[in-house]
Amino acid sequence: MNILGIDPGSRNCGYAILHHDPKKGNRLVEAGLIKIKERTLQHQILEFVEGIDLVLKNHSIDEVAIEDIFYAYNPKTVIKLAQFRGALSLKILQDLGNFYEYTPLQVKKALTGHGKADKSQVAFMVKRLLGLKGEIKPLDITDAIAVAITHSQRIKLGGIPT
Amino acid sequence: MNILGIDPGSRNCGYAILHHDPKKGNRLVEAGLIKIKERTLQHQILEFVEGIDLVLKNHSIDEVAIEDIFYAYNPKTVIKLAQFRGALSLKILQDLGNFYEYTPLQVKKALTGHGKADKSQVAFMVKRLLGLKGEIKPLDITDAIAVAITHSQRIKLGGIPT
Repeated sequence: MNILGIDPGSRNCGYAILHHDPKKGNRLVEAGLIKIKERTLQHQILEFVEGIDLVLKNHSIDEVAIEDIFYAYNPKTVIKLAQFRGALSLKILQDLGNFYEYTPLQVKKALTGHGKADKSQVAFMVKRLLGLKGEIKPLDITDAIAVAITHSQRIKLGGIPT
Repeated sequence: MNILGIDPGSRNCGYAILHHDPKKGNRLVEAGLIKIKERTLQHQILEFVEGIDLVLKNHSIDEVAIEDIFYAYNPKTVIKLAQFRGALSLKILQDLGNFYEYTPLQVKKALTGHGKADKSQVAFMVKRLLGLKGEIKPLDITDAIAVAITHSQRIKLGGIPT
């Protein structure tokens, strides 16, 4: 099955497609960044959703895992991010019917075993778990891969009927 | 032209359809409440957007005016509201291409002439401006009518090419 992992940001949105095979494990199919270049919020929302639409059209996606909104940003950023997130939710619900959410804590625990890991530790484990070489930049992309891996582990542990 | 005014809330969403004629003025076509009954955010977003979809399908809407998010709520409510708002934005952009936003201050000024008016004063002016009798409840509905009136005034003043 193909899992789409998404890390929504207010400027860039990381995404990753992970092929999950219960026996063979995970293989990274594609990962990238949707860059938000438009200036008004209306256009930004459309640009963002069009980026997601392109990913959904180019790949056969079975399930979607999204990183939850982190509350510690400044209020303006949170409101912007939450609006992107609402539009993203609707888009995924319209196209796939549902999605799964994971908090940053859940992602960190799933990847590194403890909730206080920093982003570079998560990035290290992403590369190690998938056998990737070289650097993956920016971290929005590793975060998207990480949430997809988190979801694959939940499937493996039987948390979700597959 | 028909203006759809929307006051998005985290539990109830007021909507109002105002027929605006540059010579004859405004006439209220319909006003109501989309009640959010579902328990999970995913289902709530779908329920809310389906309500808006029904309004758009039952009426010929030319322009949409939405009341801007008020920042003074508690953070959790703001994030929930912002997610509804993002989903609403996408829905309106998908169906109509654009929408207009007004802050609570702009609405209060447009209706009562001053920005410090309370909700009951706005409700009083809504009824007076449209020649309505009786009480309109709850205030989410008067707020939706008020934002539609605000938009009609901006059209009248030539703020938007019609």
